[in-house]
Amino acid sequence: MIHTYSLIHDDLPAMDDDDLRRGRPTLHKKFSESTAILAGDALLTHAFYILSNPEIIFSKDLSNNILLSIIAKIADAAGTNGMIEGQMLDMQAEHLLQLKNKSKQSTGGFDPLDYLKKMHTFKTGKMIKVSVEVGAIAAGANHEELDYLRVYAEKIGMAFQIIDDILDVEGDPLVMGKPVGSDAVNKKMTFPDIIGLEESKKYAKELVSYAIESINIFGDKALPLQNIANYIIKRKY
Amino acid sequence: MIHTYSLIHDDLPAMDDDDLRRGRPTLHKKFSESTAILAGDALLTHAFYILSNPEIIFSKDLSNNILLSIIAKIADAAGTNGMIEGQMLDMQAEHLLQLKNKSKQSTGGFDPLDYLKKMHTFKTGKMIKVSVEVGAIAAGANHEELDYLRVYAEKIGMAFQIIDDILDVEGDPLVMGKPVGSDAVNKKMTFPDIIGLEESKKYAKELVSYAIESINIFGDKALPLQNIANYIIKRKY
Repeated sequence: MIHTYSLIHDDLPAMDDDDLRRGRPTLHKKFSESTAILAGDALLTHAFYILSNPEIIFSKDLSNNILLSIIAKIADAAGTNGMIEGQMLDMQAEHLLQLKNKSKQSTGGFDPLDYLKKMHTFKTGKMIKVSVEVGAIAAGANHEELDYLRVYAEKIGMAFQIIDDILDVEGDPLVMGKPVGSDAVNKKMTFPDIIGLEESKKYAKELVSYAIESINIFGDKALPLQNIANYIIKRKY
Repeated sequence: MIHTYSLIHDDLPAMDDDDLRRGRPTLHKKFSESTAILAGDALLTHAFYILSNPEIIFSKDLSNNILLSIIAKIADAAGTNGMIEGQMLDMQAEHLLQLKNKSKQSTGGFDPLDYLKKMHTFKTGKMIKVSVEVGAIAAGANHEELDYLRVYAEKIGMAFQIIDDILDVEGDPLVMGKPVGSDAVNKKMTFPDIIGLEESKKYAKELVSYAIESINIFGDKALPLQNIANYIIKRKY
C-alpha cells in the first residue's frame, strides 16, 4: 500500500512525469492530478489504519507492543529517514549533475556513485529492509536472525535498483509496458551511466549472491527469500 | 502535523492553487511543487511515527491498546472515511455546480446545502472531532462523556467552516494574510453563496451556542473548550 502510494506520487508531473506504468496510463493521466495526489495520500494513510487494526492482516496474534514497534519502523522507513529523503535526493540529483559538469569544485568533491548508492539506500532500500524486518519480527525472529535478514534485505534492495537502471537501457518496452530510455531523457543518475553496463550487471550479481549466502544459515526455510533474490536478477520488467 | 500536511497539499496547483498562506508564500511557491508534495507526505508519515512512539508526546503512560486505537481513529479520520473523501467532494463540487446550472435533472436532485455540509463534515469535521476524541480518550473519558464531547466537536467543526466562508467574503486581507474573494474566483461552493451572508452568520452562532451548551455538564473544566468555541466565531483570520 505504501509502495503503491509512492509510485502514484512518483509518477506525478512535478516528479518523474510518467504517462505509463506497467502498460497502463498512470493515475494522473487516467483521472486527474488532484485525484492522483489524494489517492496517494489515502493509501499512505490507510496503510497505518490497517497496521493499527491487526485483525485485518495478521493471521496470528501479535502483542500490542510489537504492533506499535512495527508501525514506528514502517513510518520511519517511509518518512524523512527513508523513502522521502531518497526521493528528495533523487530530485536534487539532476541539479548536482549539472553543477558537476560546470565546475568540479563547486559541489565539494561530489561523488556520483556514492550519491547514487545513498539515494537508493534511502529511496527503496529502507522500505525493502523494513518489509523483511517486520515479517521476521512478526514471525518471532531473534536479534541474530534479524541481523542476517537485514544484510539480505540491504543487498537485494540495491540489486533491485541496479537491475531497474539496466532494464531502462536494454529492457523490452513491450514486456515492461513502458518506454525504455526514460532515465537518459530525464537526465537521471544511473548505475550504467556511472560504472558502465557490464560493471552494473556484475555488481548486481555479486549483491544477489551475497544476499543468498547471508541467509544460508536458515537452511531450507531460506528458499522463498532466496528465490526472490534470484528473481530480482532475472526479471524482465 | 496531519493538519499541516493537508494544507500543503491543498495549496498545490492541482488542488486550490494558492500562492499565499497566512501572508507567506505557500511551500510550492517558495520551493518547488515536488518539494511540497514530499513535505506533505513526510508530515503525514511522521504523524504516525510520533503516535507509535508515545514517549515523544504523551505526558502520561497510555496503554498500548489505547495507543493503537488512537492511531486507528486518526488514520480513519484522515483517510477515505474522512478528510480525503471531503477533499474529493470539494474537487467534484465545481463540476456538480456546472451540471446543476445546465440541467436540474441530470444531477439527480442534487442539493447544494446538503452537499456542502457533507463535504465539510468529511473534509475538516472528522479531523476536528477525532482531535477532541483522542484528547478525551487519553484523559480517560467514559462513553457518556465522549458522547457530549463528540457533539461539541461536530458543532464547532461546522461553525469553523462557515466562518471560513464568511471571512473569504468580508475578512480583512491584511489581517488574514491572503486575498479575500478567492472562493468566488475558484467557483467554490460556500455557505454565504447558498444561504446568504446573514443566514450564515446566524447559523454559525447557533452552532457555537449548541457546542458550548453540550459540554456544560463538565462545569468549569469545560471552559478551555468553550473558549475555543467562542474564538471560532470571533476570529478574524
